[in-house]
Amino acid sequence: MTINFVCVGNLKEKFSRDAQSEYLKRMSAFCKVNVIELKEQNQLENPNLIVEKEGDEILKNLKGKTILCEINAKQFSSVEFASFLKTTMQTSSTLTFVVGGSFGVSEKVKAACDEKISFSNMTFPHNLFRIMLLEQVYRAFTILEGKSYHK
Amino acid sequence: MTINFVCVGNLKEKFSRDAQSEYLKRMSAFCKVNVIELKEQNQLENPNLIVEKEGDEILKNLKGKTILCEINAKQFSSVEFASFLKTTMQTSSTLTFVVGGSFGVSEKVKAACDEKISFSNMTFPHNLFRIMLLEQVYRAFTILEGKSYHK
Repeated sequence: MTINFVCVGNLKEKFSRDAQSEYLKRMSAFCKVNVIELKEQNQLENPNLIVEKEGDEILKNLKGKTILCEINAKQFSSVEFASFLKTTMQTSSTLTFVVGGSFGVSEKVKAACDEKISFSNMTFPHNLFRIMLLEQVYRAFTILEGKSYHK
Repeated sequence: MTINFVCVGNLKEKFSRDAQSEYLKRMSAFCKVNVIELKEQNQLENPNLIVEKEGDEILKNLKGKTILCEINAKQFSSVEFASFLKTTMQTSSTLTFVVGGSFGVSEKVKAACDEKISFSNMTFPHNLFRIMLLEQVYRAFTILEGKSYHK
């Protein structure tokens, strides 16, 4: 099983990189995991152009079953998310999560992704959102394996 | 304006403490802020006893308008949360957010709190949840002040 995280933007703060390292290490007990960081196109001034250019790079990196993280999508509980991951992993040995940039993702990316999920009605910064996603995927594995994992 | 965060459990990982420091520093531009960490009562074996004992300590620390973070409560968008905070701050110069322990909070705490909010249908570990809460309160201030704050 391989899980890819395709993310626009890098982690600027050390605490975010440290948190990512920790959750990637824990997750590596369950699957092969890759983080693919794409460059934010903030040098462009037009948000539509930014989203299009970032989208073109995202599209090049979509592999296996693809899951777009989007604020306006169905929300799962952690147990439902684990069950959703289990079902999705039965159809493909590779999953790719997509986390867009500050201006969201292009319509092409939305159309190309197989599934869409929302974590919250709230908007989080991409660094913190990435950690929330890694933690929930790690949590999903612990739920599926019946391991205790202290909150 | 004073905002208190009453949280059961401490931040074990350095990356969580570093993230907390960063958001507290940013928030201090807008208000006086206190984090009150209460001891987890995990030496007790009975979850009901844990929740009662932790609850007694929480009750001692409730000041001003009190807002309980609970998974089964109303969810806000970040903009709605900012507006909710603004309204609440007009009624009291002190706000206290409550983040319970692994087993949740006692009925007494639920009854004592003025408001309840949920951030997600998902369950997050308390360290990560605390950062999410601090970030959203900081974000709320930037929304209310009309400051740009890059995601």
